[in-house]
Amino acid sequence: MRSLGIGLIGTGYMGKCHALAWNAVQTVFGDVARPRLVHLAEANADLAQARAAEFGFEKATANWRDLLADPDVDVISVTTPNQFHAEMAISALEAGKHVWCEKPMATAYADAERMLAAAKASGKVALMGYNYIQNPVIRHIKSLIEDGRIGTVNHVRVEMDEDYMADPEAPFYWKSEATSGYGALDDFAVHPLSLLFVLFGHVETVIADLIKPYPDRPAKDGGRRAVENHDGASILMRLEGNISAVLMANRAAWGRKGRIALQIFGSKGSILFDQERMNEFQLYDLDGRPEEHGFRTVLTAPHHKPYDRFIPAAGHGLGFNDLKIIECREFIAATEGKPFHAVTFADGLRLEAAVHAMAQSFQERKWVQIAP
Amino acid sequence: MRSLGIGLIGTGYMGKCHALAWNAVQTVFGDVARPRLVHLAEANADLAQARAAEFGFEKATANWRDLLADPDVDVISVTTPNQFHAEMAISALEAGKHVWCEKPMATAYADAERMLAAAKASGKVALMGYNYIQNPVIRHIKSLIEDGRIGTVNHVRVEMDEDYMADPEAPFYWKSEATSGYGALDDFAVHPLSLLFVLFGHVETVIADLIKPYPDRPAKDGGRRAVENHDGASILMRLEGNISAVLMANRAAWGRKGRIALQIFGSKGSILFDQERMNEFQLYDLDGRPEEHGFRTVLTAPHHKPYDRFIPAAGHGLGFNDLKIIECREFIAATEGKPFHAVTFADGLRLEAAVHAMAQSFQERKWVQIAP
Amino acid sequence: MRSLGIGLIGTGYMGKCHALAWNAVQTVFGDVARPRLVHLAEANADLAQARAAEFGFEKATANWRDLLADPDVDVISVTTPNQFHAEMAISALEAGKHVWCEKPMATAYADAERMLAAAKASGKVALMGYNYIQNPVIRHIKSLIEDGRIGTVNHVRVEMDEDYMADPEAPFYWKSEATSGYGALDDFAVHPLSLLFVLFGHVETVIADLIKPYPDRPAKDGGRRAVENHDGASILMRLEGNISAVLMANRAAWGRKGRIALQIFGSKGSILFDQERMNEFQLYDLDGRPEEHGFRTVLTAPHHKPYDRFIPAAGHGLGFNDLKIIECREFIAATEGKPFHAVTFADGLRLEAAVHAMAQSFQERKWVQIAP
Amino acid sequence: MRSLGIGLIGTGYMGKCHALAWNAVQTVFGDVARPRLVHLAEANADLAQARAAEFGFEKATANWRDLLADPDVDVISVTTPNQFHAEMAISALEAGKHVWCEKPMATAYADAERMLAAAKASGKVALMGYNYIQNPVIRHIKSLIEDGRIGTVNHVRVEMDEDYMADPEAPFYWKSEATSGYGALDDFAVHPLSLLFVLFGHVETVIADLIKPYPDRPAKDGGRRAVENHDGASILMRLEGNISAVLMANRAAWGRKGRIALQIFGSKGSILFDQERMNEFQLYDLDGRPEEHGFRTVLTAPHHKPYDRFIPAAGHGLGFNDLKIIECREFIAATEGKPFHAVTFADGLRLEAAVHAMAQSFQERKWVQIAP
Repeated sequence: MRSLGIGLIGTGYMGKCHALAWNAVQTVFGDVARPRLVHLAEANADLAQARAAEFGFEKATANWRDLLADPDVDVISVTTPNQFHAEMAISALEAGKHVWCEKPMATAYADAERMLAAAKASGKVALMGYNYIQNPVIRHIKSLIEDGRIGTVNHVRVEMDEDYMADPEAPFYWKSEATSGYGALDDFAVHPLSLLFVLFGHVETVIADLIKPYPDRPAKDGGRRAVENHDGASILMRLEGNISAVLMANRAAWGRKGRIALQIFGSKGSILFDQERMNEFQLYDLDGRPEEHGFRTVLTAPHHKPYDRFIPAAGHGLGFNDLKIIECREFIAATEGKPFHAVTFADGLRLEAAVHAMAQSFQERKWVQIAP
Repeated sequence: MRSLGIGLIGTGYMGKCHALAWNAVQTVFGDVARPRLVHLAEANADLAQARAAEFGFEKATANWRDLLADPDVDVISVTTPNQFHAEMAISALEAGKHVWCEKPMATAYADAERMLAAAKASGKVALMGYNYIQNPVIRHIKSLIEDGRIGTVNHVRVEMDEDYMADPEAPFYWKSEATSGYGALDDFAVHPLSLLFVLFGHVETVIADLIKPYPDRPAKDGGRRAVENHDGASILMRLEGNISAVLMANRAAWGRKGRIALQIFGSKGSILFDQERMNEFQLYDLDGRPEEHGFRTVLTAPHHKPYDRFIPAAGHGLGFNDLKIIECREFIAATEGKPFHAVTFADGLRLEAAVHAMAQSFQERKWVQIAP
Repeated sequence: MRSLGIGLIGTGYMGKCHALAWNAVQTVFGDVARPRLVHLAEANADLAQARAAEFGFEKATANWRDLLADPDVDVISVTTPNQFHAEMAISALEAGKHVWCEKPMATAYADAERMLAAAKASGKVALMGYNYIQNPVIRHIKSLIEDGRIGTVNHVRVEMDEDYMADPEAPFYWKSEATSGYGALDDFAVHPLSLLFVLFGHVETVIADLIKPYPDRPAKDGGRRAVENHDGASILMRLEGNISAVLMANRAAWGRKGRIALQIFGSKGSILFDQERMNEFQLYDLDGRPEEHGFRTVLTAPHHKPYDRFIPAAGHGLGFNDLKIIECREFIAATEGKPFHAVTFADGLRLEAAVHAMAQSFQERKWVQIAP
Repeated sequence: MRSLGIGLIGTGYMGKCHALAWNAVQTVFGDVARPRLVHLAEANADLAQARAAEFGFEKATANWRDLLADPDVDVISVTTPNQFHAEMAISALEAGKHVWCEKPMATAYADAERMLAAAKASGKVALMGYNYIQNPVIRHIKSLIEDGRIGTVNHVRVEMDEDYMADPEAPFYWKSEATSGYGALDDFAVHPLSLLFVLFGHVETVIADLIKPYPDRPAKDGGRRAVENHDGASILMRLEGNISAVLMANRAAWGRKGRIALQIFGSKGSILFDQERMNEFQLYDLDGRPEEHGFRTVLTAPHHKPYDRFIPAAGHGLGFNDLKIIECREFIAATEGKPFHAVTFADGLRLEAAVHAMAQSFQERKWVQIAP
């Protein structure tokens, strides 16, 4: 086991999450070398210096390209705003670094394609940060499906709802600009898409309805400014194997905070999950007498791997940040040439193709097929 | 208050439910005359006689037309299989009887139109049995929406799921025949549609995806027989006022028994409801400090009218059959020329128009507008 | 099957509930003769007349003793305030009537003993109204325990909480007077005791702690009046078979409306139930793989008898009033000399002995044994 | 901010948890110096070496006393089995180290007293590991109570249940030996006691009932061995301010995995919490119209401090291990002479006095008062 040298670009929400993961991964898993926190980049030198001290990085810089040139850096975590992902990831790959890039790949599909090309050309590890798929519950659901525990899956519903855009009087900001993307679709519909991908495979056909609950919002300089994208999306889909699916995403859903609710229906049973209660899932199967059939609420426990690496007792619960530690372990496995469970740039591009097809289906008011 | 003479055709699931309602309505509500249970019709004389004794009816017959000729009968409850509704309802109206007909109106749209025409021509009360809208919870949700408690509603989701068609090895029976209708769509999607209608108004445009989870089922005489309609339906819709809605119905959803789950999102809050827990709803609003915002689970209580007519204490719970007693009270109000809360034949026709539009949208793979 | 003639004393909460049950029992169950609603007594003639009309009784009186003399009356439902139960029940039994008396038996233990003596002397049916034990869920839990599905039960917890005494500024009324009883203990702790009795047998030893959350309340004529009994009770108990139990009752528990929550722990599993969600229970057993062990939420369905007599479809839900209809069916079975499931006067006396022992244990601050 | 040098004795469940906390505390909180992971002790040299590598400690030893002599060690985390706590903690304090000791203090009360004496004599920080009190939910509940949001608290119930001793055929092991303590009482009743202490203050009087569900278990060498302590405990209590409380603890409760359920009743509202869903709590208050009163489920969010130091978005969820990171931050605050929120050795001794009083009350079958 060789220790990886880590570079980190960005220290916001996801940047801190990556830092925590690199810090903890060896203590949690034991079977990897302790990463060396080498070089951290932020928008300005003072912030970079402060964050490097807080997060335990050796060096700090206001120029992210310094990380490309740093021979001690083996991996670069890209956690900056979406519009920077493409340039940074491509540059890092070209500089011979592994890249762990937060979702989504890029705001333009062509950029995402260039990222994949760079990844292929580099021969380096290039993975996307899609941490919800790392939940031991999701892994266990995947194994239940693969083992046929609910028979053949024929219908799936998934909802992702939060309420950070629910207040109609919240000031206009960049998330309502068209340049930031379609809105709910690429802001977070990609998360449930990542779950569907991991569990069932890719999306094949879609038709979407998008909503703009509030036509305008208070502008910073007085008056109101027209909202340019859509806060809600409802999509009918067919997945690989002709599974029928409905995806609903709404970032203006009052009361929902981190809901990602899955309902999976098969010929022998059903499975339910909601990320707001990320340490449990519900299984309905046909074992036993009909008189006692019901959805059983299963709490996470050491037999749901790799929960056991965090806590040896059942029912005590992982947190959101723990998912990133698991993803970090998968990333390291990938750098070691071992099997890993994560979203590659190739898969990430498929997720974004689905998003673009959804937007197209709404504009053209028709079913759209996604090229394989 | 004049006592109504009741005729009942059919004594199955809904027939018994009507009988219980006619029996109890005066005791529960106090302000109506006790209906006289006059004449009951069943398929054969013995069964009619037995049921009349059980349900407390004076007369029994194997010929439902006897009820039309009976001058003591003022109202006819039609609770027979769907294909008989049109003939019986129309005949009853033409005979000068009020009609309380179980949903849906008819298997053919033209028949439903004839029912409405007969109702108009008769001047009699003609109401559909859509009991879920009678739940005091639904009435209270309606008042909350009308009072603006969750602001302007912009998005709604409703799911209706049961599992009586979930077993792929259950024998083929009439519900899988094309002559019985589209399947999930008219078998029970009309129930959530009735809720949407009561709360928000009519459906304007739709696009549906239908699924047939099992292509064939065991035939009675050996071998397998092809399933002719669809057990699941997912529909994108726009309602009056351009509200975005998603309707999902699945009669092959293992574990769901009587789920009718509503999610209503507005500019100031959200409301949740599930018929499987019919004595509660959840409200998220913006009152108080954000630190304590959350969905509050409200249990039914005497202030949710007319719960008080059943039980003077909060949290004790109504049952499914109680909803029919409330509907019965509304029916009587209609016969007295008073305001009532129920689905008329005119409204019922609109619900069925929506169902036909959904089926069309699936066949033609395009959005369909419903004529007003 | 001979039709029973019914007399009803009292038309409040429970009186109406009895009337609804007598009205519906034949329609629901089919296998009993339709009771004749013969004679109704209320405090004054006008009220009696009005209620008789509403509830469908033939005769009305302001003198309850008229029912004793009425040869058409076979059964008397006693639903008056607690202090009248003893006199009315004893008189009715002495007059040769069957008696269906709402809980509790009497405010004084000696009166309850006299009631039992009268019942024995009469040879008539004398049952208490304890409707929660009639819930098909409770019956099913009983069968699960008897079948050993959760092994040997070793520990039970039961909570009964409502909030009708929770407001410290609610005016003083009779429920806070010592003459009304100990407070929470006999006001409603008898309900969970009836469940424990049905499921496990009688209480053997107890020690209680009682609380008086508010020492005084606003008096009707100004000023404040001291509260004379206790709104909350917590009791450690040992049941037959040395099962450890904890009973908690609180009528000042804000937010609780009709909670009667059972937790039953055995050597092979556990069962949970809460009357506020009276149409479901939760079972944890050891079937299947540990990876999927969890409490399964089972919804009531036709296989939980006699749910099927009300509704032929699963998951649609009974209501509180339906429990009284089931109890009514049991009462009729008793009058026919058939097996029945209900609380006799003999069992009712044991429940009240437990309550008195609890009060004694609090006053003397020691464990008290209940004479068998 | 001076960096603390850390010594760790023990690397099991809690040892790893401490290591993760020392590793992460600066990255999470930012405002403390990064602790130096200096010296780790385990039972043998190989294991010590392996764990030091995994957890990131510089030095390893099989002799825990080496940590006492190490001038680079400022703090010693004691996470060994209970019987070693006293000797290690006292020695560490005498050697001038701060001590962070996992609960409980000691198996013998006299030893716990000696620990407190040593802490006082040393002038060093001496805190117990009681991580459940660090949950932002618990902190928020504490602030709600202090702010009078639910009025005057008059009754509390707390349950702690797991099922690791629920299988009667699980082999006898040290947890069933009398030398390990009373069983459920000190094995984990101290956790809910720590919550009651933080929220309401100390326990004043108690009476307990203890249960031994299984008299014997399979012995390692064949045959069966008598169980020497009690797996379940039910306790009536009065807390400071005469609050009535019931504590129930059961380590043989099938289906419960990490349940610590609180019910808090006040004169203006109620609060509910369950550690199995550690990222939410329920509040019932009297704001708004009665028609919409209900328990609201509040999800943790950045305004529930210090959740914000982990995740900037609401509803994403902390995990069990995160609570130890918060506790670690409190420990560091204590070493800096700042206010802190944790259980001191003095408070820990009071918790253990309560446990001993409970055991005494069971043996003597009487209420026992705890000396202040």
